[in-house]
Amino acid sequence: MRTVQWNFQTNQLEMIDQRILPGAFEIISYTDYHALAHAITDMVVRGAPAIGAAAGFGLALAAQQSSASEVKTLRTDLQNAAEVLHASRPTAVNLAWALKRVMEVAQLTPGGADDVREAVLREAQQIADEDVEINQRMARNGAALINDGDTVIHHCNTGALATVDWGTALGVIRMAHELGKKVHVLVDETRPRLQGARLTAWELEQYGVPYEIISDNAAGYFLHTGQAQKCFVGSDRTAANGDVANKIGTYMLALAAHDNGVPFYPVVPTSTVDLSLASGDLIPIEERTPDEVLDLQKGGMFTAPARARENGWARNPAFDVTPARLVTGIVTENGVAYPPFEESLRRLVIG
Amino acid sequence: MRTVQWNFQTNQLEMIDQRILPGAFEIISYTDYHALAHAITDMVVRGAPAIGAAAGFGLALAAQQSSASEVKTLRTDLQNAAEVLHASRPTAVNLAWALKRVMEVAQLTPGGADDVREAVLREAQQIADEDVEINQRMARNGAALINDGDTVIHHCNTGALATVDWGTALGVIRMAHELGKKVHVLVDETRPRLQGARLTAWELEQYGVPYEIISDNAAGYFLHTGQAQKCFVGSDRTAANGDVANKIGTYMLALAAHDNGVPFYPVVPTSTVDLSLASGDLIPIEERTPDEVLDLQKGGMFTAPARARENGWARNPAFDVTPARLVTGIVTENGVAYPPFEESLRRLVIG
Repeated sequence: MRTVQWNFQTNQLEMIDQRILPGAFEIISYTDYHALAHAITDMVVRGAPAIGAAAGFGLALAAQQSSASEVKTLRTDLQNAAEVLHASRPTAVNLAWALKRVMEVAQLTPGGADDVREAVLREAQQIADEDVEINQRMARNGAALINDGDTVIHHCNTGALATVDWGTALGVIRMAHELGKKVHVLVDETRPRLQGARLTAWELEQYGVPYEIISDNAAGYFLHTGQAQKCFVGSDRTAANGDVANKIGTYMLALAAHDNGVPFYPVVPTSTVDLSLASGDLIPIEERTPDEVLDLQKGGMFTAPARARENGWARNPAFDVTPARLVTGIVTENGVAYPPFEESLRRLVIG
Repeated sequence: MRTVQWNFQTNQLEMIDQRILPGAFEIISYTDYHALAHAITDMVVRGAPAIGAAAGFGLALAAQQSSASEVKTLRTDLQNAAEVLHASRPTAVNLAWALKRVMEVAQLTPGGADDVREAVLREAQQIADEDVEINQRMARNGAALINDGDTVIHHCNTGALATVDWGTALGVIRMAHELGKKVHVLVDETRPRLQGARLTAWELEQYGVPYEIISDNAAGYFLHTGQAQKCFVGSDRTAANGDVANKIGTYMLALAAHDNGVPFYPVVPTSTVDLSLASGDLIPIEERTPDEVLDLQKGGMFTAPARARENGWARNPAFDVTPARLVTGIVTENGVAYPPFEESLRRLVIG
């Protein structure tokens, strides 16, 4: 089962509900792109590559929903759907990238409305298939950086659940394990939504990789005391200069790795590298509802005062930007980029 | 009501149960020093100065519990109690400091067993009273560093609940507010035990200081984007060179402050400065039960996989060490120490 998968029997999009893992495993089916956009916002699906694939299939749903018999009307319906889907998560560049790619096919495909519908679905499926293949190439490139016996720190979830299948940074760790290297993972729990404690820990169990969960704020202790040899993270958008936008907390992890001379590697498909952005400070940062910070319980009791919860007294930026000066190398499906990233990244992205 | 308070009517030690705030407010009474030692381990009371005061009163309980009529026997009973109390939390230097101070009085007081009992209780009460007075002096010294309109980041809980009354770093913020300065607090929730979200937020509500709770890993974002002007933290033990041991996460916060040129101030009573330690790397770091990391719930569902919880697959260091090179100044009751700390700290501690 892929994280994001088109069911060709029912013509529905099926996705693993990532909000309820690891307590429960459920598949949700979608026939309406509005519902899918809501699911992306609500993080039924999350992770830049998985969001990209889901958005591509969202246009296939929109094509199916459209009653247009004229190609021009269908294209207008698709354009409207693309705007709704684009607004569902502002930071992930894959979302815009996948929508743009499918819309280009919709514009260029000759023939009637049904030909366009078919081409849109085929392109979305192609994006999903490519994601798996690209992830496996990234995994091989990254696994070469892991030594037998390494303990690595991993932030957020970047595994099969964050992609169509296999994963980015977690795919690297999984590949090292499958190649027979002994690797231990310190799993950043990744507040506020706890993708590390919930999803990465669950995935590592499936793969048989030993792990321990840590508070995000404890990573510095393990780095300073020599208990971790590498850091691997994903990226939602990488600028031309190597600045990396990723899940909130990545910047502080990178600072701690840098302060202790521990290599820090973002693992990013080239589709998430935005060469049009000179630096990471230009990347818009999504700020999500304060509820995600305030809805935490221990022993069934809320941990924030009632007035804070009633009034939303919390801030919740979902991403931060890690400056390129803290990055050791950027792992892509085409190889590993090293500083200066302006040149090395461009070479790997454009060829 | 003080956080830690001797009741002279009942001859019991009363403490606010900090494990259940902010959901409930309860006072627990102690007559047995073993029960008190367990309460310190279990964090009914926490915060270096509060632990010190509690330990002092623990010896008063032990003196009361001892049936010794001979001074020598009483002193042996007290020495045994001091060892039990000392083992309850390994990192806080105040605990050892308070025990040593009361034990010296027990050794030096002339007269019979009841004279020693009385002197022990008087010294414990003296430690508690001094704590409040010292905190108010620290608060005035620190409040001068806050400008009208500042947003400050605060880690863990260092308020009235962490001390006998008033607080250290949070006392500084409270004093600035009482002096009429407009101050807004970004409250690090402080995983794993969430002392920020639970206790600091609750205290700030009592004082009328506006605040927002953030994930610990988001502090870097606010510092990088110019949304915070100062950081204030406590310290459980400060070395002679200015290295600061404090709640886990302090080191990563200090790195982020330093990387963005934002002043970072530990607020520490001189009783927590350990001039016998050349550097912070010599400070033993308590590692607590993995359950504290793994017992988190959202919407009533555990956030870590069942196997992780059954097997304790988490690491939980309670403190880390912030190197002096990241520290702007150390606020004490005798003034603010600036680098080089070897000289400035020694002057403020020894006079």
